[in-house]
Amino acid sequence: MSDQPHTPLLDRVHTPEDMKGLSDRDLRQLADELRAETISAVSVTGGHLGAGLGVIEMTVALHAVFDAPKDKIIWDVSHQCYPHKILTGRRDRIRTLRTEGGLSGFTKRSESPYDPFGAAHSSTSISAGLGFAVARDLGGEGGDAIAVIGDGALSAGMAYEAMNNAGHLGKRLIVILNDNEMSIAPPTGAMSSYLSRLYAEEPFQEFKAAAKGAMSLLPEPFREGAKRAKDVLKHMTVGGTLFEELGFSYLGPIDGHDMEQLLSVLRTVKARADGPILIHAITKKGKGYAPAERASDKGHATAKFDMVTGEQKKSPSNAPSYTSVFAESLLKHAAKDPKICAITAAMPDGTGLSKFMERYASRCFDVGIAEQHAVTFSAGLAAGGMRPFCALYSTFLQRGYDQVVHDVAIQRLPVRFAIDRAGLVGADGATHAGAFDVGFLANLPGFVVMAAADEAELVRMVATAAAHDEGPIAFRFPRGEGVGVEIPADAAPLEIGKGRMIREGSQVAILSFGTRLQEVMTACETLAAKGINPTVADARFAKPLDRDLILQLAADHEALICVEEGAVGGFGSHVAQLLAEEGVFDHGLKYRSMVLPDIFIDQAGPKAMYDIAGLNAEHIEAKLLDVLGVARLGSKTA
Amino acid sequence: MSDQPHTPLLDRVHTPEDMKGLSDRDLRQLADELRAETISAVSVTGGHLGAGLGVIEMTVALHAVFDAPKDKIIWDVSHQCYPHKILTGRRDRIRTLRTEGGLSGFTKRSESPYDPFGAAHSSTSISAGLGFAVARDLGGEGGDAIAVIGDGALSAGMAYEAMNNAGHLGKRLIVILNDNEMSIAPPTGAMSSYLSRLYAEEPFQEFKAAAKGAMSLLPEPFREGAKRAKDVLKHMTVGGTLFEELGFSYLGPIDGHDMEQLLSVLRTVKARADGPILIHAITKKGKGYAPAERASDKGHATAKFDMVTGEQKKSPSNAPSYTSVFAESLLKHAAKDPKICAITAAMPDGTGLSKFMERYASRCFDVGIAEQHAVTFSAGLAAGGMRPFCALYSTFLQRGYDQVVHDVAIQRLPVRFAIDRAGLVGADGATHAGAFDVGFLANLPGFVVMAAADEAELVRMVATAAAHDEGPIAFRFPRGEGVGVEIPADAAPLEIGKGRMIREGSQVAILSFGTRLQEVMTACETLAAKGINPTVADARFAKPLDRDLILQLAADHEALICVEEGAVGGFGSHVAQLLAEEGVFDHGLKYRSMVLPDIFIDQAGPKAMYDIAGLNAEHIEAKLLDVLGVARLGSKTA
Repeated sequence: MSDQPHTPLLDRVHTPEDMKGLSDRDLRQLADELRAETISAVSVTGGHLGAGLGVIEMTVALHAVFDAPKDKIIWDVSHQCYPHKILTGRRDRIRTLRTEGGLSGFTKRSESPYDPFGAAHSSTSISAGLGFAVARDLGGEGGDAIAVIGDGALSAGMAYEAMNNAGHLGKRLIVILNDNEMSIAPPTGAMSSYLSRLYAEEPFQEFKAAAKGAMSLLPEPFREGAKRAKDVLKHMTVGGTLFEELGFSYLGPIDGHDMEQLLSVLRTVKARADGPILIHAITKKGKGYAPAERASDKGHATAKFDMVTGEQKKSPSNAPSYTSVFAESLLKHAAKDPKICAITAAMPDGTGLSKFMERYASRCFDVGIAEQHAVTFSAGLAAGGMRPFCALYSTFLQRGYDQVVHDVAIQRLPVRFAIDRAGLVGADGATHAGAFDVGFLANLPGFVVMAAADEAELVRMVATAAAHDEGPIAFRFPRGEGVGVEIPADAAPLEIGKGRMIREGSQVAILSFGTRLQEVMTACETLAAKGINPTVADARFAKPLDRDLILQLAADHEALICVEEGAVGGFGSHVAQLLAEEGVFDHGLKYRSMVLPDIFIDQAGPKAMYDIAGLNAEHIEAKLLDVLGVARLGSKTA
Repeated sequence: MSDQPHTPLLDRVHTPEDMKGLSDRDLRQLADELRAETISAVSVTGGHLGAGLGVIEMTVALHAVFDAPKDKIIWDVSHQCYPHKILTGRRDRIRTLRTEGGLSGFTKRSESPYDPFGAAHSSTSISAGLGFAVARDLGGEGGDAIAVIGDGALSAGMAYEAMNNAGHLGKRLIVILNDNEMSIAPPTGAMSSYLSRLYAEEPFQEFKAAAKGAMSLLPEPFREGAKRAKDVLKHMTVGGTLFEELGFSYLGPIDGHDMEQLLSVLRTVKARADGPILIHAITKKGKGYAPAERASDKGHATAKFDMVTGEQKKSPSNAPSYTSVFAESLLKHAAKDPKICAITAAMPDGTGLSKFMERYASRCFDVGIAEQHAVTFSAGLAAGGMRPFCALYSTFLQRGYDQVVHDVAIQRLPVRFAIDRAGLVGADGATHAGAFDVGFLANLPGFVVMAAADEAELVRMVATAAAHDEGPIAFRFPRGEGVGVEIPADAAPLEIGKGRMIREGSQVAILSFGTRLQEVMTACETLAAKGINPTVADARFAKPLDRDLILQLAADHEALICVEEGAVGGFGSHVAQLLAEEGVFDHGLKYRSMVLPDIFIDQAGPKAMYDIAGLNAEHIEAKLLDVLGVARLGSKTA
């Protein structure tokens, strides 16, 4: 392809083994070629660009010095792993990134032996690395364990827990702090300020000295440089204390784009480290590609783009995203109600709260990648009389689950959970699919759990949550665009625990929870042509259930089919429990519950994922025909 | 009562308001009386003794200086809150602690306005305090927010997340680090060593100086003392850096049993603090009661005891506890298999792993109060070829849920979860009741989820988990003693996904999951006398389900009743999903699923809690008779 860059050296590197004979000068060139190839690939696939560009030199240096897959290189979050994939036997598939049947956008054990530990959520790498290091010392497999973790990921308590344990155990473990002053959002938190102070005063081109404990590890030329810069050394010695107090040798900061520094430091560490060591490397997200460097998020996640101009090729949007509908709606309530607060865990853009943050800075809190704290902080705000909206993706809420149970549910505190990315998410695959939230929330006493069927419903649910001071309440909505319905200018709160009839029919009733309602309606159109006329209701609430509605549907129809975008144990299970307790099954009801299947679904287009899940209109139609005992007249056989 | 101590001053203190007129000398005496009253009360009730005795002076000083309930005093974990309860209007009920209808063993919002934030799990207080502080500054209610947190609780990442955010926001917030070098287990982790270094070199009787940032806050006499002790000051200035780098002023260490120091420091902090401040107080767990001070766990949790000798009045034990059966069984496997490791999150005694730690120190890991790390560290061990058993209480596993999903389930890593305290737990009440684990694990693709019906079954499940290298596996068992069955010396692994028939009957089948099987069998005896002869099966597995067994039971009986000790969404919901999908409900099946009710059940005796839950033999009998349409001949009407 004419679009592809000229990469003579990279063309000869199929696995890291092929790098072993290269000179340091060759490795610098390899890095340049790797950067060009990464930009080219992401221009075709879209995905996380900035993070990968920030670790190009690091990736080359790590694979040149260490021996993967025997040595375990663990990329935290792993959205920076594209260059690593290119160097580890996956270049031929790099333009299939994040597509169905293609490479995952993250590291994945099942994809390559060079991915010793998959990731996607932040701050797990030190824990995993420590596990590998301990296993190695107990006679298990593997050589060195190397965790590469960003500064943003250090705001998560889990990273601290792991360092605290690693410092105590004293095993040889290499942590590389990839400090680009930017996780997804601009950095917040005291740790971020601390890291900034570590390199605020001196240009690091002449290599800042390492802290006392790590001095002996340094190669000779750098050690001399350190001795010359006495003030820097003093600064560093105090500065590195935080990590040293946790039992780590601290080394840095070093320039993470200077191949010579990287190679020297990594070679020395490999030769001499005998306990946990932290290498502090300063990098630039989006490095070497001007449009990414210029972008406010440094090209964090991008659509396909034009390589020259950097212009993104987004498909035209018909309806606003659920995220923006939520955010706009919350802004309106915040304008009227000074008690409304918003909390995000390092995702002001992803959750749509950026505008809230601009307009009501004192009431909007980015707490860092810290979901446990986000939930309990929200509970404290509620106990103090505020109306907090804690906005998290479904899968990230998993990180604060105990806090949801203890600090919110048991205390019946009116924290509002805005759960974005509920259900399947497309290119981000299984790790970001919000499958479990209804299951783990709807069994908590006193919780109210809602799912929006469309963007107008979402606006009503925001209003409902704003007005609900009696206890915890959550509403879920999916990734992507709404369906284009009119959005009410001033929505009244819904009655808690009441669903709505959508379509009066006979024989069979479909009870939908969430946005699969659109597919249900599509199925009904096809069914009408076959003379079948289902009743359709939108449950709105998984908790409390609309008992009257459900029991009436069961009484009036020979079959009842629940449809939701979540795992078993959620909405349909609560309906089944009600029907069982009420004795509805005793004399027969054709009951079915359509849920996400018992598999983790890999990345694909949304339609394809729903096909795999069996939750598109045709599946709903087929299920209904099957239940009624009607032979299906599918499109293929008709 | 003759047992009760002479407490003339305490008798006049009904609320903290009554302390305002007391002199500092009176406050010292009040502390002595409070200590005597606390020991006396816990000798009657049992409970957490050592923690309360360690904060007697702190409790008095806090209530003397601050104005609760306007000021929010938040006790982390809150097992140290008994003295606080005595001073805040609850002395008349203090001998009802942890009993049905009595005072909770923890702080509880619904119990008193002096408990602004309930707790029971560790490390939430700084997050909650920050919430109160922010709410106050936004015009919400309240004065000062004061979090009292132990050194053990600092090993949890959540505390770090909260400090990181608090340091960034800069709000006035008071954190008191109650450093007694002992959480529940002996301290582990680098933070613990760090704290020890802060006071290792100097006796703190003459008051150790505060760090530079906090110096101006100190009252005059102490500031002079600090100036004299130059070496100490230097040490402290460096030492406090870790907290200062996180944006806190650091003050200490001070002697947490010296009322004069406490009052001076708290008064000064109250008058002058203008940002987040950490007061580092050194205390002694069990202080002032010799038997507690002597105990290895410093009287952490105790049964009722003789006040003079300290001897505990435990009821005689008939059968070993499930915890000890698990631990002994794991030891046997570890003796044969060097790949078996054990992981605990600061609970070596509670989980029974202490002996494992003694015998196989290199394979046993106490990672601190750090469940997120515990899970991913275990996943790393598994990826490195080991066979890790991650032993956690059901409710604590909630803290590592996202890590279970991502790092274990999605990667299909063979981490073994030994889930203790599954189900109701008695005196510890709702916060420690393991109600949700089956719900949040059994919907994860590839997981194996078991529950032991008795201690022999538990031994079989340990063997099953040890042998299962194909993916994640969990087994749950309750608090308390087994039922006294013989324990197999050498149990073979169970066949994955196969239940067992217990009793062949007719008409109705009961499918039990876990230890409620004993109550099921008791119910069957009563029913037999009435001419009803139920079939009984033990499911053993919630995932994968024994499809053949379940469908056969459904086919052979007019009714099927599932019984489990967990919330809706768990075992019974998976059975219902199977029955629905297979069309079993289409033509009628009297299906019921007996689960924990949709309430948080307060502390009570085990029998009473099961009565509230409706899961004792009589409830199972009643449910069965109701399903069969037989009028119940209850004991009261017979």
